[in-house]
Amino acid sequence: MHESIFILRGNIVYSKNPEELNICEHHYLVCENGIVKGVYETLPEEFASCSVTDYEDRLIIPGLVDLHVHAPQYAFRGLGMDLELLDWLDTHTFPEESKYEDLDYAQKAYTIFAENMRNSATTRAVVFATIHRQATLLLMDLLEKSGLNTMVGKVNMDRNSPDYLCEASAEASALETVEWIKDVMHKKYKHTKPILTPRFTPSCSDELMEKLKMIQMRYNLPVQSHLSENPGEIEWVKELCPWSEFYGDAYDRFGLFGVDCKTVMAHCVYSDDKEVQRMKDNGVFIAHCPESNINLSSGVAPVKKYIKEGLHVGLGSDLAAGSTENIFQAMAHAIQASKMRWRMLDDSWKALTVEEAFYIATKGGGEFFGKVGSFEPGYEFDAVILDDSRLKYPQDLDVKKRLERIIYFSDDREIFAKYVEGEKLF
Amino acid sequence: MHESIFILRGNIVYSKNPEELNICEHHYLVCENGIVKGVYETLPEEFASCSVTDYEDRLIIPGLVDLHVHAPQYAFRGLGMDLELLDWLDTHTFPEESKYEDLDYAQKAYTIFAENMRNSATTRAVVFATIHRQATLLLMDLLEKSGLNTMVGKVNMDRNSPDYLCEASAEASALETVEWIKDVMHKKYKHTKPILTPRFTPSCSDELMEKLKMIQMRYNLPVQSHLSENPGEIEWVKELCPWSEFYGDAYDRFGLFGVDCKTVMAHCVYSDDKEVQRMKDNGVFIAHCPESNINLSSGVAPVKKYIKEGLHVGLGSDLAAGSTENIFQAMAHAIQASKMRWRMLDDSWKALTVEEAFYIATKGGGEFFGKVGSFEPGYEFDAVILDDSRLKYPQDLDVKKRLERIIYFSDDREIFAKYVEGEKLF
Repeated sequence: MHESIFILRGNIVYSKNPEELNICEHHYLVCENGIVKGVYETLPEEFASCSVTDYEDRLIIPGLVDLHVHAPQYAFRGLGMDLELLDWLDTHTFPEESKYEDLDYAQKAYTIFAENMRNSATTRAVVFATIHRQATLLLMDLLEKSGLNTMVGKVNMDRNSPDYLCEASAEASALETVEWIKDVMHKKYKHTKPILTPRFTPSCSDELMEKLKMIQMRYNLPVQSHLSENPGEIEWVKELCPWSEFYGDAYDRFGLFGVDCKTVMAHCVYSDDKEVQRMKDNGVFIAHCPESNINLSSGVAPVKKYIKEGLHVGLGSDLAAGSTENIFQAMAHAIQASKMRWRMLDDSWKALTVEEAFYIATKGGGEFFGKVGSFEPGYEFDAVILDDSRLKYPQDLDVKKRLERIIYFSDDREIFAKYVEGEKLF
Repeated sequence: MHESIFILRGNIVYSKNPEELNICEHHYLVCENGIVKGVYETLPEEFASCSVTDYEDRLIIPGLVDLHVHAPQYAFRGLGMDLELLDWLDTHTFPEESKYEDLDYAQKAYTIFAENMRNSATTRAVVFATIHRQATLLLMDLLEKSGLNTMVGKVNMDRNSPDYLCEASAEASALETVEWIKDVMHKKYKHTKPILTPRFTPSCSDELMEKLKMIQMRYNLPVQSHLSENPGEIEWVKELCPWSEFYGDAYDRFGLFGVDCKTVMAHCVYSDDKEVQRMKDNGVFIAHCPESNINLSSGVAPVKKYIKEGLHVGLGSDLAAGSTENIFQAMAHAIQASKMRWRMLDDSWKALTVEEAFYIATKGGGEFFGKVGSFEPGYEFDAVILDDSRLKYPQDLDVKKRLERIIYFSDDREIFAKYVEGEKLF
């Protein structure tokens, strides 16, 4: 599929930690069998005979990671942004998601999604589909074809959902999930993995959660869901699960909150100290979705605090509560949201830095996939080459500044080339 | 320059007020001598012989209005977003603006700015230049050539500014301003007008303000400046003008705050009741710059309140504290910022609607130019034709929804054609 060794040259930027960017101007990036061998100022003798692709003055960064995205919502991104979470789900989201029972519609919609994801700087994504098994498989086919490396979940919902988007029972939901997993195993995807996806506590009965844990253990699956996004949602979970200590505890009680299963929870805007501690203890990943949290008037997660306290944090586009698949914009939104939080709510945590935003968009989220999101030796080789020549400027700018501009106002036109797991997509 | 009558056909969208959008699918928009004659479902007999340009299923909207933009800052948009206003001015802005003494640099930088403004959906802009007379004229030449209709100001600064960007005295600043106005009169621009531009109270002495009022009256010029953007700035103004009742009063005392001179004040994040009342009484325009106010951690202006109370409100990109000239993005930012304000600071004012955001971006700001920003009969004919075919979707969408998507995630690729004052730019 790829040469065993190949080498890129350019202005290489990557993170080892949230505090600083590693900027290596006109360096060599060596890929061996899909894995980063190293970054070198002068090419070591041993690679003298290997082919070098010279990207000249362009930037080379790790592929971006979208830790939370709803593929079926892509069709209505930018629409219906006038409601809070629960009303938005009932009014816009559930009706739209119900359309994916129709495979023709799913084909049409998911094709647009997969194409745009391919054309973006994202190389990895953790994706919600819908409750529909066949449409979920279709989405996985398209993502596999796109060349991205993704985890995709058939959604589970067996309560508090409209008739047209509700599985008949916990039993039926679990059975369908097992069938879906078996289907996926037959497909033998190379880059597309299943992830267990209870939508969120309000739409999953205790019985369903118990069954999902059985499935999780049997197939050793990771888990994704939503957590502490909106005050109304959190109150509802308290009513539904009076036995829970906090929202996250309602997942943890069923073994679907880290520890023995890799888990990512979207949002965590209102996580209290206990919930934060539990996420830390259990190694739960947080998918920070700043634009979504703004568009649905949810609030702003204290992501600076999460980073400083050493929790696992990545970025999510959260389409379609977020309007764009562009994770550079998610970085800018994360910085901007943190400033609003500092100014209007709580000045004990300063704004995010560019370094921190870049880190969570690459290595922070990438760790959910393993050694992903950096150019440190041993990392899987995901790389995006950025050509910012369209974004003209009159002065001299160093690589760091060029990256900042790309974060604030680049789009898909700046994506010059893209590699996932050592394979060149374009 | 243009045919005396021409007609466009397409999906016409415009505002008469902040409450609702006028959406006229497949209607005719008639322009006579650069002025809107009307919008018609079927073309009246009298125009039967006139040429019709059929833009088919595309959207036709009034040109967008950027009520506050710093042309010399365009070069560093997206950079240095880690400081608040006063430190940001000292660290990034003043050093960059000082470069415009060099006309070669100004030519290079302003050419990029003018080109990108031309390619945007903006047809009108109120622009800050720098203190440099020649560079300001050069900017005006370029904007005149761009076809946009703009007001441009040579900046006045005679105190609290670094040596390299400070005029020698109030006298020198005033003299240079008069020279600049005379130069502008000789240029006989068609679309480019001078606007008096005291940077803000901290950088203009009382003596300078007095002289500027004399110039304002003598040449009957409009005025632009900054108001109540940042808490530190407001405190400083109190120290500098202990005699002022509030920040805006420090302009009003010199006659540079509406009444007999058309005035636009950028920001108004922290205007108290007295200041708001004075702006209302004096007919002062507010340039709401949501992205700037977020990026510099200034806060969020209560723009919903300003609209509801009937003040004049427009939108500003405020480059380079804002990162983009795209006023659609400013609309989205305005809606998003209002949600954060509602959630985190003050829930007595609900979020802006799409209708309100579109209104302030068109007619709200356009009124600073006269009858501009709408397709009501008698309005100057500024129009932008939007082709959203790149932004694929699988479902049927009505024109309103297509406009919402354009607001949230279109870019210059969607700008299909553009007219200013009845002349076609492209």
